[in-house]
Amino acid sequence: MDLPLPYKKIDPEVARKEGHKGYYEAACCYGTFSAIVGQLQKEVGAPYTGIPLGIMKYGEGGVVGWATLCGALNGAAAAINLVTPEEDWKKIIDELMGWYTMEKFPSEISNQYAEQGKFLVEKMKFDKVLPQNASHSPLCHVSVGEWCRASGFASGSSERSERCGRLTGDVAAQTAMLLNAWADKSFKASYKMSDKTVECRGCHETKTEFKAGGFTRGKMECAPCHGEDPHNAKKL
Amino acid sequence: MDLPLPYKKIDPEVARKEGHKGYYEAACCYGTFSAIVGQLQKEVGAPYTGIPLGIMKYGEGGVVGWATLCGALNGAAAAINLVTPEEDWKKIIDELMGWYTMEKFPSEISNQYAEQGKFLVEKMKFDKVLPQNASHSPLCHVSVGEWCRASGFASGSSERSERCGRLTGDVAAQTAMLLNAWADKSFKASYKMSDKTVECRGCHETKTEFKAGGFTRGKMECAPCHGEDPHNAKKL
Repeated sequence: MDLPLPYKKIDPEVARKEGHKGYYEAACCYGTFSAIVGQLQKEVGAPYTGIPLGIMKYGEGGVVGWATLCGALNGAAAAINLVTPEEDWKKIIDELMGWYTMEKFPSEISNQYAEQGKFLVEKMKFDKVLPQNASHSPLCHVSVGEWCRASGFASGSSERSERCGRLTGDVAAQTAMLLNAWADKSFKASYKMSDKTVECRGCHETKTEFKAGGFTRGKMECAPCHGEDPHNAKKL
Repeated sequence: MDLPLPYKKIDPEVARKEGHKGYYEAACCYGTFSAIVGQLQKEVGAPYTGIPLGIMKYGEGGVVGWATLCGALNGAAAAINLVTPEEDWKKIIDELMGWYTMEKFPSEISNQYAEQGKFLVEKMKFDKVLPQNASHSPLCHVSVGEWCRASGFASGSSERSERCGRLTGDVAAQTAMLLNAWADKSFKASYKMSDKTVECRGCHETKTEFKAGGFTRGKMECAPCHGEDPHNAKKL
């Protein structure tokens, strides 16, 4: 079957609530994927109805708890891949990944929804406003860890789980906004790498000269793992 | 649509060759996904034929080049999620992730296939034996970077790209082997975390006590990023 499939615009606030609900049903990766593709199954029908929403459940906790890629991003990226042509999904997913690293989660809106009982889940794990922070990474391990350190809540707490539920809604809503903008031909990428990472990548990128530093690849921020001065560090 | 879908055993060597070929067509994540699900489309037909193989293309280079989760793992995990029930895919994907971190890529078999012209791709980027190494990480950034350092080949080189092509075949073959064992009711997990990581996770796991160290989550090896003695390090 050829891609992309036909897209019909999704209300970002519907996506936010469905994403949060999906998190409660089967975690983060299923949450964003079902928020977008589930809506398209309802609004468009076939061929979306031939795709089992459960396919993305495995992404939970950065793939069965390994805490690699944030599951909310993984599920959203799969959805974007379905509905846009390759030259566009590359840009839209890149933008979503970059946005995620800079965004303070959970969003103000999600915190308000929780406090005002506007989410679709009846029995919330926690229904007060949660502290917000930006993780500067698309990795579950960093996203969860940095939020725990910023908030003082444990990784196994109900508050942390609810934080990831609201984040799942937020990523689903952002995905709907990006796809709607794309459908309107008004999508513009706005994420910019930090100056520091641009500087590192001046040498350390997917290049053909090993000795000039071309032995690495990726777009994640360098400093959070490698430190501010890795050339003088013992390791990495 | 309910999961799992019916599974029919796949020859691991067919999966290895199809995975390698898929890498040349649309990179690592599509490579493993199409090697497994493409075979099931041929052998089983519906409902697999309702799932567009292109859905997983986005995982290339750890999601559009961000170098997060290795795309070969991402595509393979999605396939495993389709064909096994939840209590089983959690164990099988966990095993695949763990195996990947310890395995020396590319495999001996893939190196032989390349040298003997047994892969399906007509115009190979490189057809000699490639150096092998284990990355101790499921992340593209680490997997590629460590292999480049071990081999001396640049990340933008044809040799590195071919290494990832063979790796894609190897992950597809391993996935077929794990699924076949599961179908035969002989699947057994054999991956064991390192003693060091088990020790770290004694406190630093998904726990409810923040002060006791419960502010992190994940199963990736700790030392490669955090060093051997993170309690006495300046950072992390």
